[in-house]
Amino acid sequence: MSSNPSAPESLDSKENVTVTACLMIIGNEILSGRTKDANLGFLGEQLNEIGVRLMEVRVVPDIEAVIVETLNEVRQKFDYVFTTGGIGPTHDDITSACVAKAFGVAWSLHPEAHALLKAHYAEGELNEARLRMAHTPEGASLIENPISKAPGFQMDNVFVMAGIPRVMQAMFESLKPRLTGGAPVRSATLAVSLPEGKIAKGLGEAQDRFPDVEMGSYPYRNGDRFGVRLVLRSVDDTRLEGAVEDVAATVRALGDEPVRES
Amino acid sequence: MSSNPSAPESLDSKENVTVTACLMIIGNEILSGRTKDANLGFLGEQLNEIGVRLMEVRVVPDIEAVIVETLNEVRQKFDYVFTTGGIGPTHDDITSACVAKAFGVAWSLHPEAHALLKAHYAEGELNEARLRMAHTPEGASLIENPISKAPGFQMDNVFVMAGIPRVMQAMFESLKPRLTGGAPVRSATLAVSLPEGKIAKGLGEAQDRFPDVEMGSYPYRNGDRFGVRLVLRSVDDTRLEGAVEDVAATVRALGDEPVRES
Repeated sequence: MSSNPSAPESLDSKENVTVTACLMIIGNEILSGRTKDANLGFLGEQLNEIGVRLMEVRVVPDIEAVIVETLNEVRQKFDYVFTTGGIGPTHDDITSACVAKAFGVAWSLHPEAHALLKAHYAEGELNEARLRMAHTPEGASLIENPISKAPGFQMDNVFVMAGIPRVMQAMFESLKPRLTGGAPVRSATLAVSLPEGKIAKGLGEAQDRFPDVEMGSYPYRNGDRFGVRLVLRSVDDTRLEGAVEDVAATVRALGDEPVRES
Repeated sequence: MSSNPSAPESLDSKENVTVTACLMIIGNEILSGRTKDANLGFLGEQLNEIGVRLMEVRVVPDIEAVIVETLNEVRQKFDYVFTTGGIGPTHDDITSACVAKAFGVAWSLHPEAHALLKAHYAEGELNEARLRMAHTPEGASLIENPISKAPGFQMDNVFVMAGIPRVMQAMFESLKPRLTGGAPVRSATLAVSLPEGKIAKGLGEAQDRFPDVEMGSYPYRNGDRFGVRLVLRSVDDTRLEGAVEDVAATVRALGDEPVRES
């Protein structure tokens, strides 16, 4: 895992480099169970496709000290940090001001964001609360929000996005060209009609033969049919296919015919 | 927030004590987006009901050093830690051994867990891989698993559970009597047909009048009807109702009639 936050800009080869990311989900409503997060799954998949590996997620409450401390930890530790939530107009939307605090810069009206909101709201509708959404940390560059206009922003390796999935996804599309990934991770899935405890030994041995191919085992139940999905992941297609063959042979030796699902 | 991990045992009053918890979701499959977590929402709600506040969630990969380091951080920081995932029979199920490492104790066959699995599996079926599920850190007490038998366990303030939601939920039911909560958090919800930017100022002022009542604002869209749900939360019923009245009056002053949903 690379741990140099300035690495992505200086990548000159996509080989053998793991570009890492952390997602901070900000909001009491996620922790209370009231709102189900839908951004983690989306981001994990999207980042995979461009060769960025989501290594960790932190869900934190709307508490300034926690947000600032967490952000300062993870922006050092990972190449990219994405945050979702807490950038609306209400008093509990403190993400943007917390990012300014974490970076030790002023939180001020961003002229470009101001112009966007002035164009969006009718005369007299851009009140004090809405103007908060035009404030960013000094030095931030905006992330376009084609849905509801109030932008996200980027500070160094930190990308600040809305929590509402539709808006978050649109913002991610806007910022994607700014990301530099390593080699994308390919995956292959084998469905097996054996209980996990029967395939475990052979799978562990296959993992030892292919330490560079990540092998995961996920039990499933389909009506009264039980089985395991074996998911293999690697940045190297040849090694991935070799591992798939190896695992498939292991499964066949146990008397089952694996089904390649992806 | 209490930060003393031994506090729950010594609580003699439920007043003015916040009992805190952290959830560690362990597994590459969550970070890759392949598997959607369903345990966060369940745990957040369940803990609320017994007066334990979920303060943070960490989603971490199947990497020993990360699991050990994270666990040692959060078990100091929060009253309770719950983990989900990584306790099955395959090579990537490393949670249990990582907990032993974090506590600096041996990872060994737990006689009671061994007896449970011997009773569950037919003669000759309890192979080496499945026996891993009968290993715990030295000193652990088991958490019953009525679904698939292989138990979870408790080490001090850390509760180790399965990742499969049905099993996790059954384990949580089993362990719940061991938890000592503070005052449960009550909540009230007002649905308002005003945009967030219009209610923001008044809501912020109401929050200032009731600093002990947490107020959150969550925009919703119902067909072409837009609005905001205002969620108020407090351990004190009287203060909660006072705040609801205050916020309702604020909404009425803006020309809308709030609908109390809970």
